[in-house]
Amino acid sequence: MCTSIIYTAGDYYFGRNLDLEVDLGQKIVITPRNKTLEFREIPNLEHHYAIIGMSIIRDDYPLYFDGINEKGVGMAGLNFNGPAHYFPVQQGKDNIASFELVPYILASASSVNEAKKLLANANIANLNFSDKLQAAPLHWIVADKTGASITVESTIEGLKVYDNPVGVLTNNPEFPRQLVNLSNYRGISPTAPENTIAPEVDLPVYSRGFGSHFLPGGMDSESRFVKATFAKMHTPVGNSEVENITNYFHILQSVEQQKGLDEIAPNTYEYTIYSDGSNLSKGIFYYRTYENSQISSVDMHKENLETSELITYRVQNQQEINYQN
Amino acid sequence: MCTSIIYTAGDYYFGRNLDLEVDLGQKIVITPRNKTLEFREIPNLEHHYAIIGMSIIRDDYPLYFDGINEKGVGMAGLNFNGPAHYFPVQQGKDNIASFELVPYILASASSVNEAKKLLANANIANLNFSDKLQAAPLHWIVADKTGASITVESTIEGLKVYDNPVGVLTNNPEFPRQLVNLSNYRGISPTAPENTIAPEVDLPVYSRGFGSHFLPGGMDSESRFVKATFAKMHTPVGNSEVENITNYFHILQSVEQQKGLDEIAPNTYEYTIYSDGSNLSKGIFYYRTYENSQISSVDMHKENLETSELITYRVQNQQEINYQN
Amino acid sequence: MCTSIIYTAGDYYFGRNLDLEVDLGQKIVITPRNKTLEFREIPNLEHHYAIIGMSIIRDDYPLYFDGINEKGVGMAGLNFNGPAHYFPVQQGKDNIASFELVPYILASASSVNEAKKLLANANIANLNFSDKLQAAPLHWIVADKTGASITVESTIEGLKVYDNPVGVLTNNPEFPRQLVNLSNYRGISPTAPENTIAPEVDLPVYSRGFGSHFLPGGMDSESRFVKATFAKMHTPVGNSEVENITNYFHILQSVEQQKGLDEIAPNTYEYTIYSDGSNLSKGIFYYRTYENSQISSVDMHKENLETSELITYRVQNQQEINYQN
Amino acid sequence: MCTSIIYTAGDYYFGRNLDLEVDLGQKIVITPRNKTLEFREIPNLEHHYAIIGMSIIRDDYPLYFDGINEKGVGMAGLNFNGPAHYFPVQQGKDNIASFELVPYILASASSVNEAKKLLANANIANLNFSDKLQAAPLHWIVADKTGASITVESTIEGLKVYDNPVGVLTNNPEFPRQLVNLSNYRGISPTAPENTIAPEVDLPVYSRGFGSHFLPGGMDSESRFVKATFAKMHTPVGNSEVENITNYFHILQSVEQQKGLDEIAPNTYEYTIYSDGSNLSKGIFYYRTYENSQISSVDMHKENLETSELITYRVQNQQEINYQN
Repeated sequence: MCTSIIYTAGDYYFGRNLDLEVDLGQKIVITPRNKTLEFREIPNLEHHYAIIGMSIIRDDYPLYFDGINEKGVGMAGLNFNGPAHYFPVQQGKDNIASFELVPYILASASSVNEAKKLLANANIANLNFSDKLQAAPLHWIVADKTGASITVESTIEGLKVYDNPVGVLTNNPEFPRQLVNLSNYRGISPTAPENTIAPEVDLPVYSRGFGSHFLPGGMDSESRFVKATFAKMHTPVGNSEVENITNYFHILQSVEQQKGLDEIAPNTYEYTIYSDGSNLSKGIFYYRTYENSQISSVDMHKENLETSELITYRVQNQQEINYQN
Repeated sequence: MCTSIIYTAGDYYFGRNLDLEVDLGQKIVITPRNKTLEFREIPNLEHHYAIIGMSIIRDDYPLYFDGINEKGVGMAGLNFNGPAHYFPVQQGKDNIASFELVPYILASASSVNEAKKLLANANIANLNFSDKLQAAPLHWIVADKTGASITVESTIEGLKVYDNPVGVLTNNPEFPRQLVNLSNYRGISPTAPENTIAPEVDLPVYSRGFGSHFLPGGMDSESRFVKATFAKMHTPVGNSEVENITNYFHILQSVEQQKGLDEIAPNTYEYTIYSDGSNLSKGIFYYRTYENSQISSVDMHKENLETSELITYRVQNQQEINYQN
Repeated sequence: MCTSIIYTAGDYYFGRNLDLEVDLGQKIVITPRNKTLEFREIPNLEHHYAIIGMSIIRDDYPLYFDGINEKGVGMAGLNFNGPAHYFPVQQGKDNIASFELVPYILASASSVNEAKKLLANANIANLNFSDKLQAAPLHWIVADKTGASITVESTIEGLKVYDNPVGVLTNNPEFPRQLVNLSNYRGISPTAPENTIAPEVDLPVYSRGFGSHFLPGGMDSESRFVKATFAKMHTPVGNSEVENITNYFHILQSVEQQKGLDEIAPNTYEYTIYSDGSNLSKGIFYYRTYENSQISSVDMHKENLETSELITYRVQNQQEINYQN
Repeated sequence: MCTSIIYTAGDYYFGRNLDLEVDLGQKIVITPRNKTLEFREIPNLEHHYAIIGMSIIRDDYPLYFDGINEKGVGMAGLNFNGPAHYFPVQQGKDNIASFELVPYILASASSVNEAKKLLANANIANLNFSDKLQAAPLHWIVADKTGASITVESTIEGLKVYDNPVGVLTNNPEFPRQLVNLSNYRGISPTAPENTIAPEVDLPVYSRGFGSHFLPGGMDSESRFVKATFAKMHTPVGNSEVENITNYFHILQSVEQQKGLDEIAPNTYEYTIYSDGSNLSKGIFYYRTYENSQISSVDMHKENLETSELITYRVQNQQEINYQN
């Protein structure tokens, strides 16, 4: 399904793996400050923060999978099929369609705290973008360049906004249960544990990496949550932007879904279509795809953000092999 | 430590992850047909099959970590610290130093079967390359372009050559035990299992990827053996060389060791320094490094293989980001 | 901590393991129909259903750990330290202290459905039995002789009554999370799984019992929940009361906590102090202790239940060895 | 299949769970000192150490499943189907049929060391007791009252005698592999591990017993080996024979196979038919059965051991419930 992380390394890096069985034709999309963002039930935004991220565009509307804004706030929507529950439009609430939530927050919030305020009176309305484009069951992670992070879930019990102390989100079940499960793995370590099962017996550490023997490696949501947490918590801080970005993509790689390993229907497999990540301070968006392991990047500040039309970049999806002879 | 695989996809692709805490300065090294290969206790080879692979060079001698020859045989040495045992030089045996084994086999064998014959009378002699360069405790995997594969282990019980039915090798314990352990995971699947624990109770498959929930994700040798097997057995066959190579590197990525996750001494971490893989039929060598996610390649057949001097290529270790704006 | 089950075998058998670090001096206590049951905030009950179960007695009050009533309703309180939250006495609610809940329900409900009704307006009040005897953080399982079962949890979010489809309760975390976790183990089976990890490779089923290889065996609450579910769901139905009771205790034995395996403070270990179970139709109470593996029993219907004083039986806690010579 | 342990608690206690799908009609059998023990290929023993244990008798021959002798040596045969390999009778070897091995060793060895000597020139001959009673594929554990323990395995590679540092034996795979696998669980502990997966995040120890969360609970041989080791290594020493015996049976109980959980053929289930254990110093044999949880015992020294006829006791297999009213 999907994994989103925030990685702390001097600057903060935020992004995600998109795990799906079909490529939806996403592009890198910059929404400049004066592109009018229309909403169904709340006032449109004519001037707002600029946004960059992965998105499809329908009717000139950016349906972001994930992105960041120029203030260093990042946000991603991840599959939450089952627990996700959207509600009818409610009087007295800020009624926001699920597909509007990423552009709404990124256009308006300069921090996680501001995002929390915007969500305080929100109702995720069960509106579809169109008959053809039904609302997807999602939950969301919001992070900012101070390292703060929240999870947003709309379930049958209403809208919940959780502080996210690990800076990781995957999919079902509900976020608090992911944290409970993470506790089960508290002893996972980069070093081998002491022999406590039979202290009198010589039990050789016959392999390196013994401290992570019980780390899960499954494609399922709980396994990815635990593994991504372990990876991001122990990944070193690099000495440069390039080294940080390199490390960042290795974290996402640790929970990559390889083709063929997650069959969702006969002969249909989910896999990690793309991995992306942005430097929240610098507004630079980086990504790789399953088909192309080279990292590409788009810098939002190299564009004129005072314009009013969506700016798009094609996803570089061809393997670029460096032939040395 | 390390993981080596052979991936079947029309052609056969063979190579490995090198997991270590230090970069030893390896290069891509081509040993042409007339480069004299000297051995301590067996006759030198003045004319032989050409070889390409990752290697360090000492005193003009190619100390290959792994490589392939022009006949489509590949071979890699992997850490086997503990069980590995080399013996004094024995009369009546083909005494081969551990560091000679890869060049010896690749220079002489045109198939796994021929490698088996060469090993039939072999003794892995406990000789060091030099006082400074002690012999490393290793075991080996040999594969060829028919898909055949063997594992070679010299332990206190002598030299064993095992057929390798999975085409995967990691590290300790001994190979037969890795197969026993693999049996424990026989139920791992791309699809969710039936509810057999409590058939009368509705137990929702709350996440995709449920069939691999118990797949291990640790850095240790057993975990990587199981995960790499699952990945390679279910990875689809591509429609082109590029697609196959892409898939191949994703298999190795599934058992990549990220920096920071495997601490072998205080503040010293093992990680996947490079991943490589060759098309056994075509003699093209591909690789990536931890620092540079782009795939590079060297084609042995673009060199003059009838020469007598080692040909080297520098490892491309700088992250090559494709800046789109 | 504790495990409670209901076992279906013609009749229904209900009871629990009590896992604790100290023996609190419990007895088998019968509360006859005319023993006045006093409550702090709700009206006393002067005439009610008779109850039998494990209990300590303070000030002539039966503080039941678990028990059943003459109508075939069983109930047990289990440690729920952390999530458990009791509330101040609330106007308009049926305010029941946590230590009153078992006697209250068993005295008044002739079925799980009736228990649900009694709980519909309940508030678990944060009242202590006395300064010396503080309220324990608990949650509860109620079951009846139709096989119905519910879980009752009072957390910061209020009082929740869940249908319990598995008929098992252990401890933290909250009950819905236990069910989510149980889904992870849906493939556990009495039979070996097919080889799906590497179908082309011969992976011998080298041991019987392969279908339960991933069954957890820990002392922790999630492990016991999963293992007890597997055991109770697959335990056969016996041909007699004795055979059923035998099978029932084997289920509880599967999640027994052995002495020495669960250290809760230096040199202080939790273990399964007693296991008990009752035939919900017949009113016969059976039990064993850690110290005495022989099963003992007390039949409530062999007492005069029309009396007004508590009837007690001493727990048989001496190992009764049958010396054959 | 089966689990055998030696438990250290002042005295030493040795015995096993017999896990099988059928009750073979075993009895408690005492072989007195002058009962002639006949062997096929080695000299008969007319005078020898007295033996007590679980056995079937065929043609007046005691086919012991397990037992101890008056010198404090214990021995058990456990299923080893697959690796077990018996050889043709060999000249110059002590040829012992597999079914003769337990009586031979117990009749002749006063310590594990003496057993080793007896085995030094042994060949396990592939002889059947009779056409109807074929040799079972077994391996063996021998222990003595000093706490010493060995494992004896006859495989295609020959007869191996391993020191057994854990004092546990289950079934396949070969013993050294069980020890390797045990290393994977070295961090299992009675106490919760430190939070090393994400030290900055508060990950509550939400349940007691966290230190054993990854302890396996399966019916398979590897799971039982690990769990029995953990249990026996941490079980406290009692203050009396009864307390020790009580603790001993709880260790075996931790790896009991409940009926219904291990299906070996349609509707045929293996389960723990009996558990037994002897005080190696005192010659007292204790046992329980699946059907009867009360412990029974037979003391060899209460019989006249200077006789020449087998002495048998019936297994008490009826649940003896202590009705308190």
